[in-house]
Amino acid sequence: MTTQLESARQGIVTKQIKEAAKRDKVKPEEIIELLKQGLAVVPANKNHSSLSAIAVSEKLSTKVNANIGASPLSSEKGEELEKLFVALDAKADAVMDLSIGGDIDGIRKAILEKCPVPLGTVPVYQAIAKKGIKNMVSDDFVEAVRKHAVQGVDFVTIHSGVSRNAIPLVEKRKTGIVSRGGAITLNWMKMTGEENPLLERFDELIEIALEYDVSFSLGDGLRPGSIFDANDEAMISEMKLLGELADRAFEKGVQVMIEGPGHIPLNMVKESMDLKKKYCGPYPFYVLGPVVTDIAPGYDHITAAIGGAVAASNGAAFLCYVTPAEHLRLPSKEDVKEGIIAARIAGHAADVAKGLKGASDWDNEMSDARKNLDWDKMFKLAIDPEKAKKYRKESEVGEEKECTMCGEFCPLRDTGAEKAADE
Amino acid sequence: MTTQLESARQGIVTKQIKEAAKRDKVKPEEIIELLKQGLAVVPANKNHSSLSAIAVSEKLSTKVNANIGASPLSSEKGEELEKLFVALDAKADAVMDLSIGGDIDGIRKAILEKCPVPLGTVPVYQAIAKKGIKNMVSDDFVEAVRKHAVQGVDFVTIHSGVSRNAIPLVEKRKTGIVSRGGAITLNWMKMTGEENPLLERFDELIEIALEYDVSFSLGDGLRPGSIFDANDEAMISEMKLLGELADRAFEKGVQVMIEGPGHIPLNMVKESMDLKKKYCGPYPFYVLGPVVTDIAPGYDHITAAIGGAVAASNGAAFLCYVTPAEHLRLPSKEDVKEGIIAARIAGHAADVAKGLKGASDWDNEMSDARKNLDWDKMFKLAIDPEKAKKYRKESEVGEEKECTMCGEFCPLRDTGAEKAADE
Repeated sequence: MTTQLESARQGIVTKQIKEAAKRDKVKPEEIIELLKQGLAVVPANKNHSSLSAIAVSEKLSTKVNANIGASPLSSEKGEELEKLFVALDAKADAVMDLSIGGDIDGIRKAILEKCPVPLGTVPVYQAIAKKGIKNMVSDDFVEAVRKHAVQGVDFVTIHSGVSRNAIPLVEKRKTGIVSRGGAITLNWMKMTGEENPLLERFDELIEIALEYDVSFSLGDGLRPGSIFDANDEAMISEMKLLGELADRAFEKGVQVMIEGPGHIPLNMVKESMDLKKKYCGPYPFYVLGPVVTDIAPGYDHITAAIGGAVAASNGAAFLCYVTPAEHLRLPSKEDVKEGIIAARIAGHAADVAKGLKGASDWDNEMSDARKNLDWDKMFKLAIDPEKAKKYRKESEVGEEKECTMCGEFCPLRDTGAEKAADE
Repeated sequence: MTTQLESARQGIVTKQIKEAAKRDKVKPEEIIELLKQGLAVVPANKNHSSLSAIAVSEKLSTKVNANIGASPLSSEKGEELEKLFVALDAKADAVMDLSIGGDIDGIRKAILEKCPVPLGTVPVYQAIAKKGIKNMVSDDFVEAVRKHAVQGVDFVTIHSGVSRNAIPLVEKRKTGIVSRGGAITLNWMKMTGEENPLLERFDELIEIALEYDVSFSLGDGLRPGSIFDANDEAMISEMKLLGELADRAFEKGVQVMIEGPGHIPLNMVKESMDLKKKYCGPYPFYVLGPVVTDIAPGYDHITAAIGGAVAASNGAAFLCYVTPAEHLRLPSKEDVKEGIIAARIAGHAADVAKGLKGASDWDNEMSDARKNLDWDKMFKLAIDPEKAKKYRKESEVGEEKECTMCGEFCPLRDTGAEKAADE
């Protein structure tokens, strides 16, 4: 019983490494090399039997995560399962169940059974939902992680970087803490006067991770919640601590990712990626957004696509989607789909930008189909065939190949495309 | 009777320069200086009486243009007027009427009467729609420009950069020509064996521009239509020619912009902006997108927001919106709105990134409102208050200030926001 990382260190090609290699059209040896260098994770809990594994690495195609899960004010198990299916249809590479209300155990169990992609959670959410902050003790932080590990969760966000030293830094900020897990942890620390159990008892978490091969996603409890707070002292101090913890876990054989911002203005996104490399080493960077402006609630899938594309072309490996509902409410099924498509666009734009082998083939095939006015092929290649078909249908006029944008003055038709398509 | 540029050269503060200065919260003298350096245009036809002028410049806030207009296969005058109102509601800074079918004169006249923002057109569309390519003669190219100038159009796209020398370069490409105006011009040249009238008779166009103060938007007939063709020889050769023509017009007192790509992968967007500066001088760069991948029909407002944000933070002054309907059909009213909001997000993200004075105030006010859970203020500040309100309404639970995302575990509430808002 070893982790994917330990297998890689022994040169063993596991089933999961093979699956991940196939998915990215690389050789298993390449995945092994990336795992050994800490440049990749293959999140694959031993108890997640329905999993088809993937690798997350800046050296591979950018992966996209979709957050689902109930809150105390909204959503039922059935609805969250439906969101899972929407997420899978829209080709999310991973899913996180962030349930913090409702039948948390039931929802997670139901999702895990149906989930062929890696599943992540934030165990502290369940701890607080169950007992409330006033009744929580140190053990609750650790036992929630163990419970999720036993059940088969592939990666867990643990906010081990929120130390007591952070308290004065947070108070200097415009928007304080906007991470739910970070806020829970910090508030508990203020209330009890104790240090963060996820930091103090990190070695126990390592043991759990090794037993089940749960990957760590070291949480950015202090991620900036406004562009004003971007790349500030609080964020950097947490990065330094996360880097130390990541090394400790990695040495023991635990797979590790680092979570990142948040709200970052466009001119500071690359700097943010460079700071992570400087302080947190080679481990895959898993970013939420980043959103590049604060002014667009209702459109934060777009602010995040801008930031995500630039982040992923500068070293981020894993994009956590942001939906149009961000900052306003729990996402609906439609929001889930829109969020995933936007993040996948950002990821693919980055794959092309970073020169990933084969990435632009997709674009080139689409452009060939476009040049030939071959609509069936365009639909097949479109990131969302359903939406492309719907729009095109509203544009069809008789048997003509052109669309209502230009009609007979279609520049492609006039330059010989019609001829090529007919031949 | 002089152009805004000639006024600036004489140090005269016109009504239009004042309006533009007020809009950007700068002194009129700053606009004058930018005009004199060729770094700004204030598109303002002497016959556009309903205009409230703006300045387009990389040194000022990024401006956004919305394309409306009928095609031979779609849309009525009433519908295009409704799109104008949608565009104005969504705060487009300028509008282009690209009608290439229907009652072209009637649509343009109706739009001009109701249009307080600068209106642009592509006169060659009307020339071809009226006579068809087989009957068009050189005069038709020039007279269409004159007609639009007399009527009050503030800026005209003229594809003067499509010369006979471009023909072999276009044939080498994956997607040839995707500019409608470029294709019309090139096809006419191939058919007649003549040179482009918009190039050969450029001095006549200058005379027209001077008489009515029509700004030139020198069209990118050879813009790449696929990321494969990005920054290629065809594009660069056109840029060189546009740069020469721009200098000629500017010296005579005509206000000039340069149009740009198109499809450009993310890693080449900055290079594309640098090429423009190298070959086309200081004149404002007016870009369509750029879209950073070809694979997302139905979502090209997002691919364009990514490219537009990076372009505008690297020197583009004016973003032509791209709607979700791009590559599929003429945009609907909903598409017009989505396209404008996406482009405005890109423009604002760039304004913040380039350190434009005061740009991040908007973000900071929003973040303060968010921290205080002050929903009314958040709505007021949101780029689309209507959508933000709608989403929030679906999230309201009793009198609580938090939303359904986190419910009672709202990190902002827990860190004292509730208290601050109540005080």
